Amino acid sequence: MAHFEFGSGPQVLRQMNCAAVLTALRATETARVTDLMRATGLSRPTVSAAISTLMADGWVEETEAADVGSPRMGRPARVLRFRADARHVLGVDVGPHKIHCAVADLNGTVVSQIRREVTESDTPAVLLGRVEDTMQRVLDAVPVPRSSLAAVGIGTPGIVDRRGAVLQAPSVPGWDSLELGSLLSRIAPCPVHTENDVNLAVLAERWQGAGDDADDLILVQWGVRVGAAILVNGQLHRGAHGAAGEIGFVELDTEPQGVQADGLGPLESAVGTDWILRRAHDLGDASPDAAAVLRAADGGDPRALQVLDEACDRLARGLASFVSAIDPELVILGGTITLAGDAVLAGMRRHLTRRALVMPRLALSRLGDDAVALGAVRVALADAQRRLLDVYATASPVEQR
Amino acid sequence: MAHFEFGSGPQVLRQMNCAAVLTALRATETARVTDLMRATGLSRPTVSAAISTLMADGWVEETEAADVGSPRMGRPARVLRFRADARHVLGVDVGPHKIHCAVADLNGTVVSQIRREVTESDTPAVLLGRVEDTMQRVLDAVPVPRSSLAAVGIGTPGIVDRRGAVLQAPSVPGWDSLELGSLLSRIAPCPVHTENDVNLAVLAERWQGAGDDADDLILVQWGVRVGAAILVNGQLHRGAHGAAGEIGFVELDTEPQGVQADGLGPLESAVGTDWILRRAHDLGDASPDAAAVLRAADGGDPRALQVLDEACDRLARGLASFVSAIDPELVILGGTITLAGDAVLAGMRRHLTRRALVMPRLALSRLGDDAVALGAVRVALADAQRRLLDVYATASPVEQR
Repeated sequence: MAHFEFGSGPQVLRQMNCAAVLTALRATETARVTDLMRATGLSRPTVSAAISTLMADGWVEETEAADVGSPRMGRPARVLRFRADARHVLGVDVGPHKIHCAVADLNGTVVSQIRREVTESDTPAVLLGRVEDTMQRVLDAVPVPRSSLAAVGIGTPGIVDRRGAVLQAPSVPGWDSLELGSLLSRIAPCPVHTENDVNLAVLAERWQGAGDDADDLILVQWGVRVGAAILVNGQLHRGAHGAAGEIGFVELDTEPQGVQADGLGPLESAVGTDWILRRAHDLGDASPDAAAVLRAADGGDPRALQVLDEACDRLARGLASFVSAIDPELVILGGTITLAGDAVLAGMRRHLTRRALVMPRLALSRLGDDAVALGAVRVALADAQRRLLDVYATASPVEQR
Repeated sequence: MAHFEFGSGPQVLRQMNCAAVLTALRATETARVTDLMRATGLSRPTVSAAISTLMADGWVEETEAADVGSPRMGRPARVLRFRADARHVLGVDVGPHKIHCAVADLNGTVVSQIRREVTESDTPAVLLGRVEDTMQRVLDAVPVPRSSLAAVGIGTPGIVDRRGAVLQAPSVPGWDSLELGSLLSRIAPCPVHTENDVNLAVLAERWQGAGDDADDLILVQWGVRVGAAILVNGQLHRGAHGAAGEIGFVELDTEPQGVQADGLGPLESAVGTDWILRRAHDLGDASPDAAAVLRAADGGDPRALQVLDEACDRLARGLASFVSAIDPELVILGGTITLAGDAVLAGMRRHLTRRALVMPRLALSRLGDDAVALGAVRVALADAQRRLLDVYATASPVEQR
């Protein structure tokens, strides 16, 4: 049992005042001392002292903002801003088909990004080399020193354990058993957080996309593969083994089918975009790829709509159980399937209503392909915030011996 | 944005010292001042002052413990104990077949309980009358004033909303639309918390039963009806509409079956104990009830084992999806099905392994019929703890204007 006493009252108070001023300043573009006094309720000397500390620590600077107020006598009031560019974070999306790296400042504004296609035939070593190369290039494109990097987030397919090791990644052969985080720490001399890609996408949708403040939320990422990620009480739910939300491996049939020859799980094999293209061809559709089928469905083509309806019927069978377990406020659909637009929403609504005890709202992803890299930025930002800025908010009790 | 300053340092410190002494005292049966000094690291005057406050507030008393130490000169040292009996809580389980009321002290020790059978034909008004009567009687059996009651927890079948209203309760006709909490507050002049019964059972299993410190945990309550409750990160997951875990309404078939004529959901209709008895009779078994079939399975009867295996196969189809969504560390099986003992564990393990990507541990409920009332006690205790004891631990910052 640990007990705490506040051993250093004045220091604690000073830190808390810094936290209050920093929070007020981050909520706005720029502010004068009087604005910060109003926002925090603190006195002028207290605000001024906090600003001095924050400037010395590199988080606040004076800026030459246009004088928007009425002309006044004497020395112009200082205009201050949070230095969001004092440090940066890097978000990385490594998939079987692409690498996407995004550099963001401490406000989460993306200041540089690079997207590269990769081929599935790349060996893990080649793929890792390309990831390193892309990280180097996106960082070189930002006019800040490498030491400015505060944290890195990486999204990858597969099951990722708590230490950041990739345990199972059926879509990237050989990718499992790699300790991505420690391998990439050569480039990034800062904490590296590895996370399942769909998990990052749901965090991004809640942050900047279709998440709509829903605290209990399921994102279904529906392409060749089908995965889901779950927020419970606004927090990512990883599960006891990091395998929560693996809807692609749900068995629909009386006799379990297991993992298919092409590496797909039973449900993704029955509803993924590979199946959608095959089914369209069976019906005489000559579309070159699933994207074309889905666009045709969006355009109202009856044959494409039939294929989509069959796929929605099947996915609804798996998703209804997830909805029964979680009872989410909102289900977001992402991935290639969103090319079908409202048609996929309507199809899922039709089939899920028949199976769900309580029907959640449905929405399409708003971030599309950017979701994973943005979610990686979000995770890196949360870490940077915790290590760099939250120190002011911590009351730093002294543990008594 | 609210900002806090520690406006009243000495008071805050005194409260925190009370919290430390109270925590130390609650961790043990009795303690001397020197024991509390050692446990908290606080000085003798500080511990003595805290004890005076806690005695004045009624939470601590001197006791006449046997002098276990060596004989010593002078005045014997004071022996202190936490007054767990200073207040009480009441847990109530209202089901279609029984009412179970348990009174516990602030340590969670049950000091009085009453169990009554009720019939399904009782109208909601009659049932409510019986609940009130049972609550009166169990409280009358405890030699403490009614004003000692700090909080009440009530478990009921059905979907319970955040305000404690029962929204859907198919197993107790007319029970929905009752505001149980406000109706029963006539008897209990204290906060009343209404919660779904399976939700309470999972809290109880984690507290005193088979929960085994698992943070991600599913309890499947398997009788005539089949329900599940879910802990995520050690916290009850209710879902956006209070409907999380309603596994009995999962649809297994390609064509949804909907709620059956007998009010059962599709899955519970396909695996519940009514089905088990019917199936046993189909196979020529003459058991009078499902309990007899399950006991026969526990005894190794081949026909009963076949019925149980078929039921496990079907339940595994619904449960596997829940396992995929949640990825629990542990699944606990409760309800009438536990009469089959290890046979049901073996059956579920066999069929779930074929369908789950990551297999959780399986265990039988250890609390059986007591789980709901104990969970209700737990919820009431948590509320009492928060309102009565945690006040000392709160640093009570003064909000600045």
